Formats: sequence, structure tokens, C-alpha cells
Amino acid sequence: MKPLTCYINGTYLLTDEAKLPVNDLGFQRGYGIFDFLRVDGSTPLYQDDHLDRFFQSAQIMRLPVTENREALKEVIRQLIKKNELPHSGIRIMLSGGPSPDGYTIQQPNIAIVQAPLPAPPDAMMQTGYKVVTFEHQRQMPEVKTTDYLMAIWLQPWVKEQGADDVLYRHNGFVSEFPRSNFFIVTKKDVIVTPADHVLKGITRKQLIQVARQAGFEVEERPVSIADIAAAKEAFISSSTKRIIPVRQVDELLFAPYHARSATAKLFSALRRHEKLTVEQFI
Amino acid sequence: MKPLTCYINGTYLLTDEAKLPVNDLGFQRGYGIFDFLRVDGSTPLYQDDHLDRFFQSAQIMRLPVTENREALKEVIRQLIKKNELPHSGIRIMLSGGPSPDGYTIQQPNIAIVQAPLPAPPDAMMQTGYKVVTFEHQRQMPEVKTTDYLMAIWLQPWVKEQGADDVLYRHNGFVSEFPRSNFFIVTKKDVIVTPADHVLKGITRKQLIQVARQAGFEVEERPVSIADIAAAKEAFISSSTKRIIPVRQVDELLFAPYHARSATAKLFSALRRHEKLTVEQFI
Repeated sequence: MKPLTCYINGTYLLTDEAKLPVNDLGFQRGYGIFDFLRVDGSTPLYQDDHLDRFFQSAQIMRLPVTENREALKEVIRQLIKKNELPHSGIRIMLSGGPSPDGYTIQQPNIAIVQAPLPAPPDAMMQTGYKVVTFEHQRQMPEVKTTDYLMAIWLQPWVKEQGADDVLYRHNGFVSEFPRSNFFIVTKKDVIVTPADHVLKGITRKQLIQVARQAGFEVEERPVSIADIAAAKEAFISSSTKRIIPVRQVDELLFAPYHARSATAKLFSALRRHEKLTVEQFI
Repeated sequence: MKPLTCYINGTYLLTDEAKLPVNDLGFQRGYGIFDFLRVDGSTPLYQDDHLDRFFQSAQIMRLPVTENREALKEVIRQLIKKNELPHSGIRIMLSGGPSPDGYTIQQPNIAIVQAPLPAPPDAMMQTGYKVVTFEHQRQMPEVKTTDYLMAIWLQPWVKEQGADDVLYRHNGFVSEFPRSNFFIVTKKDVIVTPADHVLKGITRKQLIQVARQAGFEVEERPVSIADIAAAKEAFISSSTKRIIPVRQVDELLFAPYHARSATAKLFSALRRHEKLTVEQFI
């Protein structure tokens, strides 16, 4: 593979040589935001949604962005052209920047990197995820910050449990996975996903729309452990994985995935929607 | 001032040129720990306590450290010699390091930087701090992680309130400041500081010892808003500030600082203890 190119503060350079100063608040204080989009057949999927969220995260965290939307789109276009990676992920990072007192924001650093990322294999649908819950509520969950401290720290524990991912719960209600959203399907075929204290995923947003178009009723509301126990299906959604069925949450088991499930219907509808989005991208 | 030198992964280099790769988990995922010690008259104050905590933080976060304790002490000695900064702060940073999947820890990066830091002025004792409380509980409070997301985000709000710092509270109990510990003095001259869900500061530790030697009763236990309302004095402790009296917590006002207060006695005792520690340092 040829050396990859990235973008830092107005300059294109080799990703292997992409560095930022140790006194950046991103390093020193964990202060930064980012967004991550999947490139499918050289198309940046749901690009405007990701840029909307990126600028919103930056605004909430009071991090000024030098580049406007069109400039960022142009960087993404250039990276896709230079790196020749039709199936990949693009990460747009905005860190607090260097700070003389190690505390006050001055000029953020922006870095945009691209790396190979295969499209999620359909086989993921067959096996499904075993999920464990953990008592935790992320700080500023609505913002896509770089705070994954708990997520990374929990990884060995998740593996010890023989699980594929961890679902955060708080006071009897679940919220989200570190990098994915959570959905249940009730016995009446209603699609339900936690409304508050979660990062609003772009795939989550697209999926809600797709589900409604497919005739499903969708509710965004609190989801309790009891709701999960009463549900007939559960699945996760994310930009890198699309949809993955959940076969187990802690001790609660779901029926094996089958082609006539609501999850399967949603998966097919989402794939069609994604294909159409790619075809229509200019 | 001459250019400063720092240490990164076994090499001394100019701090202005000290950089780490953008794919370091410290940047990408806010995953890192550090410690910070004050250098007083070229003596690294309470060095062993800081190194104890540094290695403990690293262990809890599963970040292997290449350098042993003696090697780190030698780096600190070399930096103090090279930089000729008798009054300064030394920051030992350990970040998650580069990660191929952006999630799994492999080899952390270590960076040790020194910067000028004047000894805290005694005048701070006269004015004292106005403090506002904010509902928040830090994740992994006992570990000195690089997570200061909430702290930095709250800064403009703290300034708007005309306050000097923010004290985190949760369910009616207070815990700590982003970078300092909190103490109250009861009407019976008992020194009380929150026991749990706080970072155990090195100055906090030294102060508890000094207070007991000075004949004070010291309790580490939960501190409620009602406890603060009933207290006759309050103060903060930190490595960079030693002790600063608190004159106000939200709407609760304390009597002005005076030389016969418990806070004043503790301040004098801590200064003597600090002087002795510097004199005895080999």
C-alpha cells in the first residue's frame, strides 16, 4: 500500500509524519472533538450529516474551526483522490490546541486522516453480539468528544465476559455503546431507541427515517432493563457496522436472528438506502 | 529565557519541537495519565509521593511504563540541571500511544516537560477564593487521568459567576475541584475533607499529616452542602497553590481570613514542613 496522506492545519502531509505538539490540550487535558465517516466506493457517506455534527460539537466545546464546510469537503475529496482508498474511514479531529497555561483554549489544531476500512460484512448479521451492561453515564454524551477513557479501560473486562461490546446503563436505564447506538423491537414491532444522554449517531438518524418509511413505528424514549427483557429483538447501529443483531444482554437471551425479523427488514432497507445515497452523491 | 528541554521516550529534545503522533490514543481517545510536581529551589517537592501516584495511575489504566522509578528520578534531575529553572513545574505524561485499531493499547508514549512556575504568593491567603458548585462526578476520580473535559468546558461559566474555581457536587455531597482538594474546618476545629470519589492530592496527604502533628483532629468522610453551611472555615489545597482560604461557596459566606484561624495555622505548618522537606532533599 502506498504511504497515506493526511491534512493538518492547511497542509497535506504523510500520515506517518503527522504529529501534534505535546502541549496540545487534546493530549494534556483530553479536550477535543472529532467525527468519523465511512467512505463507500469513494463516496463519503452521509457527509453533510457528519459535518453538521462536527461543527455542532466544535461550537458546544467552544473550539473555533478555521475551515468552513466547503473547505472541509474539498479536503475530504482531495484525500479520497490522493489515497485511492475507495473503502475507508475518514476522521476529522479538532483538539484544544497549544495552551500557555495548560488550561485556556487559544487556537485548536485540526487533523483529517484517512485509513482503510472494509465495508461491514453481512456475516455479522448471522452471529450477532453478546452485550454486557456497565453502570456509567458519559459526560456530555450529546457531543462527539474524544473522551473514550471508560470505553478503552473496560475492554479487557468485556473480553473476560466473553462479550462483544459494553452497553452503558444508569439507574436502571440503558443509554448507548461507546461507539454505537442501541435499539429494541417490542413484541408489537415498535422500534425503540434511547432518546436522551446519548450521542445521536448518523446511522441512528438515517435508520429512524428508513424505519418509518418502511412502515415501522419508531419511538425515541428511555429504555429500561425491563424494556429489554420484554423486547423480542435488539440490535446496535453504527457508521462502521450498520446494524448488528444483539443475541444477548447480560443474562437476557434473544431468539436467533432470522430473515423475517424486524431487524432483518431494517437491515435490508438501510442497505438499499445506503446504495441509493452513494448513487446520488455528486 | 533559553530554550527548554524535555524528555520523550528516552530522548532529550527541545520542548518547542516535542510532538507526538496524531494517532496516539491520548489524542484520539483522551486516554492518558500524568502527574505534576512543583520544583522549589531546584528540589522536586514530594517527588516520591508523585512517582508513587504516577505508577499507580499507570497500573490502573494498564499503561506499561518503560522507565523505572530511578530512571524517572534521573530524568527529573537532568531536566532541572539542563533547564536551570529553580522554581518550576514538571509534568510527567503517559499517553495510550499509537494504536492500529484506534482502540487497543500497545506501547504508551512518555513525555516529561518542565515549565516555569512561581512559588504561590502568600497574598493569595488574604483574598481567598469565591467558589461555585456544579453537579458532576468525575469518572475514575482516584486516577490522575488527562480527563479535564468538564473542567475546561466550565471555565467561561466560572468566570461569568465571578468565581475563582468550581467545586464538583453530586447528590448533595461535594468532592473536589478540577485541580485541587477541598477542606472545611468545623466549629469544633475539626479538619474535614471528602474521603471518596476524589483524587488524593499529594498536598492533601502532606497536609493531613501536618495537621495531625499540629494537634488537629482530621476526618476523611463525605462532606455535604449542609456541612459546608455549618463550617466556620473552608480552604483548598493543591501542589501549585499550597492552601487558599475559601471566602464563599455559592451563596454561603465565610468570615474574612484572619491570622488566628485554623486555616492560617495549617498554612504556616505546611510552609514549615515544605521548607524542611526541601532542606532534607538529597
